[in-house]
Amino acid sequence: MDLGATKILTAAVDSKGNITERVKWATRRQRSPQEIIEEMAASIRAMASRQAGYGLDLLGVAVAAPGPLRYPGGIIENSPNLQWDSIALQHELSQRLGMEVIVEKDTNMAVLGVQHFDNPHQHTHLIYITVSSGIGGGIIAGGKLYRGSRGGAGEIGHMIIDPLGTRCGCGRIGCLEAEASGLAISRKAAEMLQAGKAEGIRALCTGTEVSAKEVGIAARQGDPDAVHIIHQAADLLAMGIANLVNSLNPEEVILGGGVILGLQDLFMDRIRAYVYGNVFPLHAESLEIRVTKLGEDIGILGCAAAVLHRSCDGF
Amino acid sequence: MDLGATKILTAAVDSKGNITERVKWATRRQRSPQEIIEEMAASIRAMASRQAGYGLDLLGVAVAAPGPLRYPGGIIENSPNLQWDSIALQHELSQRLGMEVIVEKDTNMAVLGVQHFDNPHQHTHLIYITVSSGIGGGIIAGGKLYRGSRGGAGEIGHMIIDPLGTRCGCGRIGCLEAEASGLAISRKAAEMLQAGKAEGIRALCTGTEVSAKEVGIAARQGDPDAVHIIHQAADLLAMGIANLVNSLNPEEVILGGGVILGLQDLFMDRIRAYVYGNVFPLHAESLEIRVTKLGEDIGILGCAAAVLHRSCDGF
Repeated sequence: MDLGATKILTAAVDSKGNITERVKWATRRQRSPQEIIEEMAASIRAMASRQAGYGLDLLGVAVAAPGPLRYPGGIIENSPNLQWDSIALQHELSQRLGMEVIVEKDTNMAVLGVQHFDNPHQHTHLIYITVSSGIGGGIIAGGKLYRGSRGGAGEIGHMIIDPLGTRCGCGRIGCLEAEASGLAISRKAAEMLQAGKAEGIRALCTGTEVSAKEVGIAARQGDPDAVHIIHQAADLLAMGIANLVNSLNPEEVILGGGVILGLQDLFMDRIRAYVYGNVFPLHAESLEIRVTKLGEDIGILGCAAAVLHRSCDGF
Repeated sequence: MDLGATKILTAAVDSKGNITERVKWATRRQRSPQEIIEEMAASIRAMASRQAGYGLDLLGVAVAAPGPLRYPGGIIENSPNLQWDSIALQHELSQRLGMEVIVEKDTNMAVLGVQHFDNPHQHTHLIYITVSSGIGGGIIAGGKLYRGSRGGAGEIGHMIIDPLGTRCGCGRIGCLEAEASGLAISRKAAEMLQAGKAEGIRALCTGTEVSAKEVGIAARQGDPDAVHIIHQAADLLAMGIANLVNSLNPEEVILGGGVILGLQDLFMDRIRAYVYGNVFPLHAESLEIRVTKLGEDIGILGCAAAVLHRSCDGF
């Protein structure tokens, strides 16, 4: 199950990573966390029962949830996206279902998905970075999910990369997320339009809001302001990645999330050039930087990986 | 043994961390790596023989060496400090001594020293940061030294924190080391003197070179330009630390190295205030930021820790 700010996806995944059923629905803000958790439990029960009808057994249940997520415990801390505070999701859901549910931060689930289903060289040092409306990350260190002291590891969207920059949703100034996320790209485009620039973006917009996708289309069509916005985001992202590579010396940095999946032709070459040019030769020699093959299903496949790991090696 | 750019320290350490003998000598640049390795082997042989005379057995030999250091293999890559390139230090020294020598990057040895001899709460997620002429780091993740793919993890002095900043010794622009190290502090002070500022620093200087220590003394005496230089270094260092804390969620960040050991009264409160103010509450709640108790002996004590770990648990 992938619990998002506005949508929940329940999916049945077999041990090979085939998604055999999926149900997606919009969460309503006016519902309490308890009501939503009850909806989640009901959806899982119903799907397990349908799958049992096809002769398929339930090996486990895992949920990818927005961070910050406390570990151990699977407790959703003060979440700006969900507007939940101190909700013991793992406990509540496990009780309702009568079985131990795995709960991990969505980006941690994603990197487990990469490790298990998108890891042709069986690498053991991986960093996954998602760029969508926000920016987040997950770290596999020595073959294991690295959570740090309280489950907070991987909050790389909140590396400060420009102390004189923009205020981030987290309250601080100049976070990577405030400068290079989908929302940051939209904001910069809107500012350009207000300043009478970026004709190429204006021609694509129907309303007052500009999406990162529209900025990308304008950039592909050669609008110089749109190109500038995308290049700026790519460079800051690359700087964050280079800093992580010099600090952690991973074998692979894998990117995903809506912005990267949709605009990889605009981002990836530029990111690669910067990173390889700004890390030590020792760090660059075996480094791979690529887009995940798991697409938008990465969270769900990560949940499947988490269940498989636990049932195989006590993860 | 602590192999530095200009000095080598051989020391005998007992299992409690008491240093029972030390020999320190200056290396000469005109000597070849092979001649220096021969000197190192001779020094170890002589010390082991003297210690045997006191009835003390040699449990193992470990060397802290400057990075980048390839792992596995203990090979010194292109080292700007030593001016060595592709020297298989571990192999060469092991052959000469007829026993398996442990070789790790100096900052990795230091964090092993912290974990073993300066870890009252037995924490398992530690980041050690040294600030001397350069800046480096070592990471303990889940109780184990984290080396990454090729031994390069911990090169946090080369996080880029100001893309419009100063050229670093590594060739890139705006590395933490180029903005906040002892050499960076000296350079900024010299620039101020050249601009006719920093009267308080001028009064302390005998030659044309200014040390970070002299900048610190002038700052303590209230020279506003000296205070500015120190605060700038502390703030950039703190920004780098906050970024690591959000990325790795450690239980402790431990600082050492000549600049921190000598100027902790000027640095630490400011660093703590910035870091606690710029990480998530989940990351801040259990975080300790402190100066190591191991002082200048941290590298040697780290070597002892590495030998003890290996003989105890197959490290």
